[in-house]
Amino acid sequence: MAQNGLYKRAAIVGIGETEYSRDSGRSELTLALDAITAAVRDAGLAPKDIDGLLKFQVDANSEGEIAGCLGMDHLRFYGELGGAGTAGCGLVAHAAAAVATGLANNVVVYRAMNGRSGRRYGRGEVTMRGGSGLGAFTEPYGQLVPQQGLAMLARRHMHQYGTTSRQFGAVSVALRAHANLNPKATFYTTPLTLEDHQNSRYVVEPFRLFDCCLETDGACAVVVTTAERARDLPNTPAFVLSAGQCLPGYRGPLPDVTYANARTLAPGLFAGAGVTPQDINVAQIYDHFSAMVIFALEDYGFCKKGEGGPFVEEGNIQWPNGRLPVNTAGGHLSEAYLHVMNHMNEAVRQLRGASTAQVQDAELVLVDSGIGAGALILGR
Amino acid sequence: MAQNGLYKRAAIVGIGETEYSRDSGRSELTLALDAITAAVRDAGLAPKDIDGLLKFQVDANSEGEIAGCLGMDHLRFYGELGGAGTAGCGLVAHAAAAVATGLANNVVVYRAMNGRSGRRYGRGEVTMRGGSGLGAFTEPYGQLVPQQGLAMLARRHMHQYGTTSRQFGAVSVALRAHANLNPKATFYTTPLTLEDHQNSRYVVEPFRLFDCCLETDGACAVVVTTAERARDLPNTPAFVLSAGQCLPGYRGPLPDVTYANARTLAPGLFAGAGVTPQDINVAQIYDHFSAMVIFALEDYGFCKKGEGGPFVEEGNIQWPNGRLPVNTAGGHLSEAYLHVMNHMNEAVRQLRGASTAQVQDAELVLVDSGIGAGALILGR
Repeated sequence: MAQNGLYKRAAIVGIGETEYSRDSGRSELTLALDAITAAVRDAGLAPKDIDGLLKFQVDANSEGEIAGCLGMDHLRFYGELGGAGTAGCGLVAHAAAAVATGLANNVVVYRAMNGRSGRRYGRGEVTMRGGSGLGAFTEPYGQLVPQQGLAMLARRHMHQYGTTSRQFGAVSVALRAHANLNPKATFYTTPLTLEDHQNSRYVVEPFRLFDCCLETDGACAVVVTTAERARDLPNTPAFVLSAGQCLPGYRGPLPDVTYANARTLAPGLFAGAGVTPQDINVAQIYDHFSAMVIFALEDYGFCKKGEGGPFVEEGNIQWPNGRLPVNTAGGHLSEAYLHVMNHMNEAVRQLRGASTAQVQDAELVLVDSGIGAGALILGR
Repeated sequence: MAQNGLYKRAAIVGIGETEYSRDSGRSELTLALDAITAAVRDAGLAPKDIDGLLKFQVDANSEGEIAGCLGMDHLRFYGELGGAGTAGCGLVAHAAAAVATGLANNVVVYRAMNGRSGRRYGRGEVTMRGGSGLGAFTEPYGQLVPQQGLAMLARRHMHQYGTTSRQFGAVSVALRAHANLNPKATFYTTPLTLEDHQNSRYVVEPFRLFDCCLETDGACAVVVTTAERARDLPNTPAFVLSAGQCLPGYRGPLPDVTYANARTLAPGLFAGAGVTPQDINVAQIYDHFSAMVIFALEDYGFCKKGEGGPFVEEGNIQWPNGRLPVNTAGGHLSEAYLHVMNHMNEAVRQLRGASTAQVQDAELVLVDSGIGAGALILGR
């Protein structure tokens, strides 16, 4: 029984993306325009139909430039979301709330960045924190980038539950196998074995090179509209069944550092869609680091706490035979690092039956943007 | 006939503010916490009841710090809005959409800044533009701050419609008279005559000193909840009847520079509430500069285009006898410059019958945050 006012009120009806590269040779504005144009066309709409635009706070483009370049003269809803890369699911939720209440009819959510040739997140070239000082507790000690903080959580998970580097590697290997089926993926033609993973250098212990996500130049966009309009448009709608957010990095009531925000968010998320974790057919999980997929699997309730390592090692996240195929286009580890918006597009493709690692009769997809910073359940 | 899905689905049920000063002696975080605490208490709620938090993109505080300091352990909706000071109405609209669709139950919207003792907007100490370069067309020529760009629009208005500096002054004088009734206003004890205005120095021609808003240290906050919950809380609810946004600075289909975004936004705004401009009892208008009130009065349709100058000169915006009292607490010109959030609180006071310049039986209030960048119609 669905308990929320968003249930099937809105749907993703268009998806678009640029090529993924290490050096786009183009501005982030051009990337944004290309991905948005592709998504709007995919939706069967024209840019002038778009009256809402939501952006990542860290996205360098301004709404005015995008609207001006594309002729969106009637933009009447806009906003943004912080938390750096974790904003994707929350933004789609905000778009869904906007169209459900008539603040807009057709809302674009996008992410565009030259994440490799421009500012690189993994090098501390982008300020990740608010202006008022949380970094004061960590930055003077040299903790500047996400992999440093999250490595400590991963280490604790290993200590507490016996999770191993080979289990982290099982995530990387499974996602690489999915990328090897996806011609758009950065690592389409490059296989990865567990031995490759185990032989790769440490970036920050216990994270090896192949535990860490890509750096990508590119852009992705989606179009969200009302359920009624969605039924008149060309593609199978990906309905928003339920959505939730938690503050990334804010631990609130979590018992210890091996738990992620997904733990707080999951009960409301599943209740809102009227489903359980066992009903989900395929998951798109924010994989900045392989270990974080294990945290997410546990904290959303796909397996018991501490059993994420064995869960992935047993092949449960690998298409086609796994119980819950994860990141079926390759994810951040092997497709592209577009701050979950490439996952969003893949979630929609799964519901359309158009993935290169298609889960048969996929009806329900979970999308996670940051171990519970945001999450969606999308359905046909 | 209301045409939008927000109509009376949400209400502002709590308001709070700090003292307004030129040197708070406190951090912007402390200011935010004080205003939020006051608003939550005013709503008859506790901080733990707050599960949504929306901020101005330019606000220096982080959601995590605010949540941590106040014990908001169950925050499940958050976001922000750019456009610098113009975000207030849009954020309340987003909050209304969130509670209407169940993304959250009780959402705080706040603004906290040391706008005088800290970074000063009027000096170009705050970056007002996105990172991707619109400023490249103006900043090399020395146009760094809002008063410079808007002065050119005001000059054109004078040229095209015969608007005068004395008419700009009529706005400043009317709002000062309102501030002289409001003990919290910066200029509570300081009167202003039209001669004072005419004798004041130019800041940027045609803007004289008293055409320009204050710089303020302080904070304001509101609590938005559902209409159902609002009826069980202690205060008279200020229901959100209609809301709209336009991109600040994006001119879209506007005919010339004497028109503001309010022109684009107004038809949907009034239709959404099922009312006309003539039905509005009191208006709270973003008055960074006196002339911008004249633009807003015209473009929302309170008077004809080009007749804003005579409209204000004839006393129509002054309490108690004006046809449409404007900024009844003194506004940005004479109460405080808190990016329309002090206007928001005054709008709610008018609907509660609690203003120091109370419009009798006020039923409908228009709030504008940036000549149409955002607008709300609130009602009892």
